[in-house]
Amino acid sequence: MNRQHTYNHTLFERPALYTDFYELTMAQGYFLSGRKDDQACFDYFFRDLPFDGGYVVFAGLSDLLQILDGFQFYEDELSYLSEQGFKPEFLNFLRDFRLNVTIHAAKEGEIIFPQEPALRVEGSIIHTQILETLLLNILNFESLIATKAFRMKYAAGDKKVLDFGLRRAQGFGGIQASKAAAIGGIEATSNVYSAFTQGLTPSGTMAHSWIQSFEDEHTAFRKYARYYPDNCILLVDTYDTLNSGIPNAIKVAKELEEQGHKMKGIRLDSGDLAYYSRKARAQLDEAGLDYVKIAVSNQLDERLIQSLLNQRAPIDLFGVGTRLVTGHDTPALDGVYKLAAVNKQPKLKISENIEKTTLPGRKKVLRYSNASDTFLGDGIVLAHEEDPAIIYHPHYPAKHTDVTEIQSEPLLQPFIRNGELLNTPPSVAESASYARQRFERLNAEHKRFENPHIYKIGISKKLMDLRDNLSQKVK
Amino acid sequence: MNRQHTYNHTLFERPALYTDFYELTMAQGYFLSGRKDDQACFDYFFRDLPFDGGYVVFAGLSDLLQILDGFQFYEDELSYLSEQGFKPEFLNFLRDFRLNVTIHAAKEGEIIFPQEPALRVEGSIIHTQILETLLLNILNFESLIATKAFRMKYAAGDKKVLDFGLRRAQGFGGIQASKAAAIGGIEATSNVYSAFTQGLTPSGTMAHSWIQSFEDEHTAFRKYARYYPDNCILLVDTYDTLNSGIPNAIKVAKELEEQGHKMKGIRLDSGDLAYYSRKARAQLDEAGLDYVKIAVSNQLDERLIQSLLNQRAPIDLFGVGTRLVTGHDTPALDGVYKLAAVNKQPKLKISENIEKTTLPGRKKVLRYSNASDTFLGDGIVLAHEEDPAIIYHPHYPAKHTDVTEIQSEPLLQPFIRNGELLNTPPSVAESASYARQRFERLNAEHKRFENPHIYKIGISKKLMDLRDNLSQKVK
Repeated sequence: MNRQHTYNHTLFERPALYTDFYELTMAQGYFLSGRKDDQACFDYFFRDLPFDGGYVVFAGLSDLLQILDGFQFYEDELSYLSEQGFKPEFLNFLRDFRLNVTIHAAKEGEIIFPQEPALRVEGSIIHTQILETLLLNILNFESLIATKAFRMKYAAGDKKVLDFGLRRAQGFGGIQASKAAAIGGIEATSNVYSAFTQGLTPSGTMAHSWIQSFEDEHTAFRKYARYYPDNCILLVDTYDTLNSGIPNAIKVAKELEEQGHKMKGIRLDSGDLAYYSRKARAQLDEAGLDYVKIAVSNQLDERLIQSLLNQRAPIDLFGVGTRLVTGHDTPALDGVYKLAAVNKQPKLKISENIEKTTLPGRKKVLRYSNASDTFLGDGIVLAHEEDPAIIYHPHYPAKHTDVTEIQSEPLLQPFIRNGELLNTPPSVAESASYARQRFERLNAEHKRFENPHIYKIGISKKLMDLRDNLSQKVK
Repeated sequence: MNRQHTYNHTLFERPALYTDFYELTMAQGYFLSGRKDDQACFDYFFRDLPFDGGYVVFAGLSDLLQILDGFQFYEDELSYLSEQGFKPEFLNFLRDFRLNVTIHAAKEGEIIFPQEPALRVEGSIIHTQILETLLLNILNFESLIATKAFRMKYAAGDKKVLDFGLRRAQGFGGIQASKAAAIGGIEATSNVYSAFTQGLTPSGTMAHSWIQSFEDEHTAFRKYARYYPDNCILLVDTYDTLNSGIPNAIKVAKELEEQGHKMKGIRLDSGDLAYYSRKARAQLDEAGLDYVKIAVSNQLDERLIQSLLNQRAPIDLFGVGTRLVTGHDTPALDGVYKLAAVNKQPKLKISENIEKTTLPGRKKVLRYSNASDTFLGDGIVLAHEEDPAIIYHPHYPAKHTDVTEIQSEPLLQPFIRNGELLNTPPSVAESASYARQRFERLNAEHKRFENPHIYKIGISKKLMDLRDNLSQKVK
């Protein structure tokens, strides 16, 4: 084959080169300038809420922890870097490199908001720098898709939502898309690989080609029902939904009844889904098949699901594809990884846009809740300061809140300490369940799709002063 | 770890489960109904042009050919399918399954258009069906990104365009994004993994964190220049671009000159890039550093690149990220895989939307060119008919063109015959070069970003009659 290197290792086994080249040139620079033992602290956070929404579901942590566990460079990788001009003494350093960082993070499934660190990495400057791109790639994408999935599931309420997106997923990104979708609450997936590796529920029955390949639609349906009598969802729009597809499905449902089985459902994949689902429901009910469910698919997203249900379309299952697995209207979360401190000296990056100036220093995040456990807002404070009495708007100190009487919890918890994984990363089911629990505690105004209310994120006086003083100094 | 199965195989080694579940339920259905030796013919084509553009650059073929070569099911995969209820006799069939199809396709890098088959798969119905999802996943995504890249490079003209997108790529889709970007003409990538495995040129120097980590900007620049004297691109916007970043870069460039080196460039990553690039150019030129190049990055796409160059911004290199590797405004190509024939019987799928009714039968595509080799349009015709004299608009037969005097070439060529790969798949460089050559032959009106002229795709009378007769019959 034409690949320069045959390289049959997954990124879970060998993630070290799945990185931006500049992480390595900088790492070599730190090494050559004798700074390899300098200690650094980086924050992961995002700036803009995707989908014009009110929140993000944090995901990717379990994959990140797994991929970092055993992170090292292999000989063929080092040879390649040597060809690219990296120096022998640095390559020797990489040869013995075993990732040794401490990571605090929000739990996978946490509901997170702009500007607040969802994850903090500490360790020597090379270790903390070298994982930047990998970390961003995983957390940005999985959080994006978990959030999109969560919104779809929120719109669908107690109706099931299934992931049918693999054919339109961005290449091998489909591996993570289906996992993140499950963290976001999607009940099953067409993606067999992800079902296999992640223990998700696989789902799917037939394409139009099945029906076309038989001499007629009735035969195609009947054959499928014969082999899958208890898992039979018939696709009814190959030729003529109302005059052929549904009548043939009804015939087959009756044949199944005679054999002691119940047809599971029909699927509509085109046309006006509100109109056709209502017509289909009526035809099925008239035939005494009120137990036969109606599944729909075709370019669905959270807004279309909401619209269909607002129209009281009698739909039981929503199959979502492209608009789930790519994020569609927001195809990337803009998460960044910013240096907050070096050798305990707080660092910041100035921006002309004041809101893009970073928050310096090692920080923690406190989440405040009222007496009925509803989230009130989050405070970003220095890691070592006492929990502050007052939390300030990040840019308008006149806006502030006394939090002394309000219960709070720390958002970031240790997951890796000095390179050692502290606990088994959460399973998909655990993260999905945690996301649901936490979301319950969010006010409804943050959940709506149209102009959601902005969740309050403030900072402590000490952090504000540190930022403002440093900003003055570096200018 | 929490994965249900430890599964350290790449999708290139073991792609069989990277598929929709229904491909397998249908395959078992064909097997159990005694139809496993039925012969089928499927077409791959897309319907809507991405990015409101005028063309698509066909990509993913080399990855597809490589991934299909050796496609089979392994024991742990079969055990999983057994757990999912697949029957022992079908699993035995899969155990011995070695993909045996014949694939004709456009060459990688071909300029393709809506509705026309860019690839045709023939073989027994199970073999042709079972690769659907994998094929769509690869071709849709790589064609999307190659097209986006091509547009960016088209806008940039003789300026270089670099791929910096990995941190915002959709998970492991970054592997294919960087390759497809190179097929589309992007000159280098930050993605070390793809550079390593595909022989691309890796690129990158420093992030803001490098500069922040030193006591001051000048020291940070000087250190970098010391270790990379001949590959030094300094990021100048960490603190204050015009008053600190560029003056410090100039100092370091002068220091490099004294040591006999030339600084390669500076990079602007924020602010108004037209304004700052002009200011930067003036400051550099005034210091006698006209050889120092200006690189820019920050949410660039083809329209912004075009706008910057229309403003005569003195920019030499464009770094593109999110908007390249995700497709951004169109995050998925809507390519489909449709059954065209079974046992030589042409098949079609009706749609209420007449333009979504598929073209039945085994087909080929002819591309017509004028005497100066400019592409005039394409004709979709039955594979075994003589090259037709007249090509018709697919839906308005009154619109037609006599093509008897016009030179034509077949677009689809054999790549796999009866399971055997006929040639080494093309390299990235070959596909990129082919895309450029073919694009040269396209009229400028199809290339522009705003309302590009629609490239003509017609069909033969025989194909039209076949479609219309079948449509009548199945109704």
